[in-house]
Amino acid sequence: MADRNTEAVLAVNQAMYDAIETGDIDLMNSLWAARSEAICIHPGAEPIRGGSQVSRSWAMLMANVGYIQFFLTDVTVSFLPHAERPQVAYLTCTENMLSGEGVDSVESFTGGKAVASNVFVLEDEHWKLAAHHSSPVAVQEEQ
Amino acid sequence: MADRNTEAVLAVNQAMYDAIETGDIDLMNSLWAARSEAICIHPGAEPIRGGSQVSRSWAMLMANVGYIQFFLTDVTVSFLPHAERPQVAYLTCTENMLSGEGVDSVESFTGGKAVASNVFVLEDEHWKLAAHHSSPVAVQEEQ
Repeated sequence: MADRNTEAVLAVNQAMYDAIETGDIDLMNSLWAARSEAICIHPGAEPIRGGSQVSRSWAMLMANVGYIQFFLTDVTVSFLPHAERPQVAYLTCTENMLSGEGVDSVESFTGGKAVASNVFVLEDEHWKLAAHHSSPVAVQEEQ
Repeated sequence: MADRNTEAVLAVNQAMYDAIETGDIDLMNSLWAARSEAICIHPGAEPIRGGSQVSRSWAMLMANVGYIQFFLTDVTVSFLPHAERPQVAYLTCTENMLSGEGVDSVESFTGGKAVASNVFVLEDEHWKLAAHHSSPVAVQEEQ
């Protein structure tokens, strides 16, 4: 059961990054829970609340990013209140990003690193996004 | 019921910032859930996992901050999976910080602004911290 939940949460999480990469706002919208207030904190920004506002923020982000690719590392999932009968999943991952204006030359790419905490809620047997919080990682921050 | 839960979550959240301000690591440790893996993402840093590692990170933070005061604004709490029988609380707030080496002169103070998403889980009828994610807010980020 825990494994099935983990796999399902990982799939929804991956789909969120796929949606950003492909600029697929319909896919993005389909991943969010309908019965909880959506909350989104983009890197360096203040919280955005409510499904329509969150959807709009993703559409704007997609429109402003020419090319972006995510390599997710250190993906971990915790289930709350406990693993036996989980209602909520808390996933953290490192977002290693490659972005650029075009794909014609290597020089146009820039890299970036952020960490995300993504919250999922079980809704009609399906895991859905309830919150996304992404923040930049400072280089050489490790002690 | 929802009001009682909201009040309880707000009290634990405030106690977390009180613990940082007063450097009270025992208070901080008492606020975290025992039965879920603690996860902490400090501003600009990568996730720290596990109760002892999280506690150590707070102790180091308290040791390195001479003086710090938090003014919390835009505090909102959502309950998951739903408000009627909540198991998990997701709180977001803006952390307006005033910090400095000492309190002797106004010049020694510096300000800062971050947003936090704090996750609480109901454990033996008490709301306990399960995760804390704080990230810096870029000035003039708003559109």
